[in-house]
Amino acid sequence: MTSVTSLFAPVDADLVVLVENLKNLVSARHPVLYAAAEHLFQAGGKRVRPAIVLLLSRALEQQEPTARHRRLAEITEMIHTASLLHDDVVDSSDVRRGVPTVHSLFGNRIAIQAGDFLFAQASWYLANLDNLEVVKLLSEVIKDFAEGEIQQGLNCFDTHQSLETYLEKSYYKTASLMANSAKATGVLSGASPQLNQELYCYGRCVGLAFQIVDDILDFTGSTDDLGKPAGSDLKSGNLTAPVLFAMEETPYLKVLIERQLQESGDLEEALMLIHNSKGIERSRQLAEQYAQQAREHLTEVPASESRQALVEVTDYTLKRLH
Amino acid sequence: MTSVTSLFAPVDADLVVLVENLKNLVSARHPVLYAAAEHLFQAGGKRVRPAIVLLLSRALEQQEPTARHRRLAEITEMIHTASLLHDDVVDSSDVRRGVPTVHSLFGNRIAIQAGDFLFAQASWYLANLDNLEVVKLLSEVIKDFAEGEIQQGLNCFDTHQSLETYLEKSYYKTASLMANSAKATGVLSGASPQLNQELYCYGRCVGLAFQIVDDILDFTGSTDDLGKPAGSDLKSGNLTAPVLFAMEETPYLKVLIERQLQESGDLEEALMLIHNSKGIERSRQLAEQYAQQAREHLTEVPASESRQALVEVTDYTLKRLH
Repeated sequence: MTSVTSLFAPVDADLVVLVENLKNLVSARHPVLYAAAEHLFQAGGKRVRPAIVLLLSRALEQQEPTARHRRLAEITEMIHTASLLHDDVVDSSDVRRGVPTVHSLFGNRIAIQAGDFLFAQASWYLANLDNLEVVKLLSEVIKDFAEGEIQQGLNCFDTHQSLETYLEKSYYKTASLMANSAKATGVLSGASPQLNQELYCYGRCVGLAFQIVDDILDFTGSTDDLGKPAGSDLKSGNLTAPVLFAMEETPYLKVLIERQLQESGDLEEALMLIHNSKGIERSRQLAEQYAQQAREHLTEVPASESRQALVEVTDYTLKRLH
Repeated sequence: MTSVTSLFAPVDADLVVLVENLKNLVSARHPVLYAAAEHLFQAGGKRVRPAIVLLLSRALEQQEPTARHRRLAEITEMIHTASLLHDDVVDSSDVRRGVPTVHSLFGNRIAIQAGDFLFAQASWYLANLDNLEVVKLLSEVIKDFAEGEIQQGLNCFDTHQSLETYLEKSYYKTASLMANSAKATGVLSGASPQLNQELYCYGRCVGLAFQIVDDILDFTGSTDDLGKPAGSDLKSGNLTAPVLFAMEETPYLKVLIERQLQESGDLEEALMLIHNSKGIERSRQLAEQYAQQAREHLTEVPASESRQALVEVTDYTLKRLH
């Protein structure tokens, strides 16, 4: 498996600075959040979101990222982290990436406050980028997160939802941030509207591929890799691509899900039906399509080591499955 | 006591529209939030924040508020409501204004999501006002809220805090929204920088007077009026103006507070000491000073029925004490 560090090689040093900046920001004035912040920004995050912004910035500018690009990269990681903090409280999750959550270690109070603090600070940084178009793009992301969070609750154990609903939810939860921040990177670089649209599509496709792969791993990964038991999404009623495809093939799966997997052995049986169906393979093909599309949207970006890394991000996404 | 309805007479009809818009916004796409939204925007709120924006808008424009002023008014109520939702979860409050909180009725999940939704929607509305200066002013407010929420936790039962610390916290929690939204109203009306600064000071002074009066009422109000038992702030370690003044006069009060009022009879004794001190009277005088200053900052606003209402808001603030 490609290590993430070598994957983002052109921006490795930039990412180290970014993590330090974020830790200092949270902990400087608020000793009470210090421990939470250390924990938060240390916890093995892949920094895919800021890496995409920094790589795009280098690819477009053909030089070091500007101060505003670096700030935009920080904003993406802040918004992402804030949403994880609140998600963990909402879902009462005790573990994420194999590490205890802030909510489980420090309590609801700190998790909500740290999330609010990061959202608020991100909004303020954003306003002070002094670019109304960028403000609009990222405010769209924050709105989409809230929408996704709510939709996920609404569609819980709903076997009638379509693949479109699933993709929309995945856009809100994951792809919107990548799409809009990629476009915002172009806006800050003064790229043409056409190129900015390509960047948006690159981010959207990478984000969707990424989310679909995550959803496959929830079925195929080991507890060690996932940092949580396999099948967690299904158990909590979050029906993802593998389930939706498997239900088409195996109607009995719907019966199990509609009774919310409440009878003894339901979860195990449902997992077996999914593994025996083409659900996982079809999901992989769907992710592959989005990864392929993502690569195509990079053709207008001038060739460089950074552009090459952006291409490899799409491969990496799929390689996580091996 | 002046009824709030007659106080805001020039914008009564505007406020009815505003509340309807907010209810529709929250409930339209999200049945799950519908009950929460009904509850939230119905619960006897005074709508002081949007009323100030709408009154200022009428006073400056000498006509109906523009669509952007109405939107700004909605944003102030959304940010305010979102912060209450999260405060109630953080403080585990079961009752507010005598009404059960969303968190106690619908659970943490809905309270956090509804708060995130309102913050997110407010950010998006804000960005789409298409005025970078207004975006910056209101993003400052959101940052101040998060700061205030955290500071309140840090200063819990801290008897060394100064009146300045208290006023700073009150600015973050209450006055920042009124100050920055008053200034933003001027910005949207194309008022001069000098006038905008006066509007900022008006909002700041009203906000501080308002918060000090709220903090006095926590000691002098009845459970019925407050919708919670008197002395709740003190009990939870939030040391407000009456306590800070009383501690100067009665050092023994510090002893009780430093042991966090844990021994039997401590709270009752502390309340008695505060009532027997000049703490409440000195706090009233401080609020009076801010109300007076607020009125002075309105002299540059052209005379009108709406300006008169803005003057009366400052009187009303103090009249709540009788």
